[in-house]
Amino acid sequence: MTSIIRIDDPNDPRLDDYRDLNHSDTRPDLPGGKGLVIAEGSLVIPRLLESRFPVRSILGFQPKLDSLLAALGDAGANDVPVYEVTREVLAEVAGFDMHRGLVAAADRAPEYSVGEVVDGASTLCILEGVGDHENIGSIFRNAAGLGIDGVLFGAGCADPLYRRVVRVSMGHVLRLPYAHMEGKTTNWQHGLAYLQEKGFQIIALTPNPEAANLQDVIDPTKKTAILVGAEGPGLTEHAMRATDVRARIPMQPGTDSLNVATAAAIGFYEALRHRQ
Amino acid sequence: MTSIIRIDDPNDPRLDDYRDLNHSDTRPDLPGGKGLVIAEGSLVIPRLLESRFPVRSILGFQPKLDSLLAALGDAGANDVPVYEVTREVLAEVAGFDMHRGLVAAADRAPEYSVGEVVDGASTLCILEGVGDHENIGSIFRNAAGLGIDGVLFGAGCADPLYRRVVRVSMGHVLRLPYAHMEGKTTNWQHGLAYLQEKGFQIIALTPNPEAANLQDVIDPTKKTAILVGAEGPGLTEHAMRATDVRARIPMQPGTDSLNVATAAAIGFYEALRHRQ
Repeated sequence: MTSIIRIDDPNDPRLDDYRDLNHSDTRPDLPGGKGLVIAEGSLVIPRLLESRFPVRSILGFQPKLDSLLAALGDAGANDVPVYEVTREVLAEVAGFDMHRGLVAAADRAPEYSVGEVVDGASTLCILEGVGDHENIGSIFRNAAGLGIDGVLFGAGCADPLYRRVVRVSMGHVLRLPYAHMEGKTTNWQHGLAYLQEKGFQIIALTPNPEAANLQDVIDPTKKTAILVGAEGPGLTEHAMRATDVRARIPMQPGTDSLNVATAAAIGFYEALRHRQ
Repeated sequence: MTSIIRIDDPNDPRLDDYRDLNHSDTRPDLPGGKGLVIAEGSLVIPRLLESRFPVRSILGFQPKLDSLLAALGDAGANDVPVYEVTREVLAEVAGFDMHRGLVAAADRAPEYSVGEVVDGASTLCILEGVGDHENIGSIFRNAAGLGIDGVLFGAGCADPLYRRVVRVSMGHVLRLPYAHMEGKTTNWQHGLAYLQEKGFQIIALTPNPEAANLQDVIDPTKKTAILVGAEGPGLTEHAMRATDVRARIPMQPGTDSLNVATAAAIGFYEALRHRQ
């Protein structure tokens, strides 16, 4: 059984991981200046506990904490310290009222290599220039739900372990393997050739009306990688050229392109449909 | 040519429509207690000007205002008053810094009837219990982009003319016809029988793994109505019973249901795919 340690002093150093959570994503005192992994709520914290990230502690107020431990079952929190505070102390430490009442902190873990993500995967998502944390979180949620096996990051993407990404992804960023394709001496797009060697068809989604229709391009004899770029600028020409095919989701004239996470979801759905 | 009127006094009554925009969605002084239609930015304001909503004024700072008028072309703002303020005056009036620098206000217009939305439509979206403004905005954006002809509201949905809905929809809530199906003496679901009489197949999206696969259920000889409900509770059993078929988007075990706007987008995409 996990025992709960009550803390009443907001200045207690055991609460330091949770100070000023609105600015917790940059931590000049930590390696790389990046913050800890912060997970919030009764859905995401169990996913953090099952993940490869070493959990440092769990913090919350009652009765949320008892419910969480009950849901975790006999294993409890696996020897992770669990601290009980009042809602007021939590608000003072975090800097705002956390109505979810549950938060956990973990260390960052070494990232997977591209090879580790690609091996065994039959469907992948590749991102270029997706700088919005909410979009990255939604993409991980959609990828997990629609059966994508991993995510590869090209250049210009935001940090996938930001607090908001973890929350919007519903914790799936902690579970779904991902890696960065950035090379030190080469352009990241060279990684696309590696994927092609590994048997992937790379499909770049574009709003260009001259591109082929998405539903017509998927080669079911190959593995599938869906490449999406930021709304607005879209994929770079460099990335486009390194793909097998450019595909569009049929859109109405006079409308805007879809949100990148929504476009990706439709791409994942098509990839899945062709594998059934 | 539209002439621009410069206003330097933040207390000028011509700026009253833009006061405290974070709380502008409720206006006890207006009919029904609902706020004006507020449109923000250079993409959405032209859509407001082309819409059925009577525009009261446009407000902004330079050089955003000149760019907007240049983009509007010869017709300019169609005799709508255009007020120039400084960024500081706009921030003081609105209650926060509006970095977009452009905002317009319009009166609410009478809503379409269900018959007006249904007549001539071959694809519709029906919402039940969608109370989140961001989701409603995303659904309108996705519906417009993916060729849905109109939106019908069942019970329990949020106001589609909230400021945030207008923004997230990219103004498409001002263009795409919608109506509320609520009856005064009957349940709103009776409206579903009316749609069936009009030749629509009503497809309810559900995460239930026992439901049919979405791609297998669409009857291309009929018009298509996609019915979605709130995440969490989902559609009511009452609504489910009034539909022709319950369909699921194939999901991975152990994941969460998709966001309602994303699920709807995949439903719209399938409806469109079967009409091509």
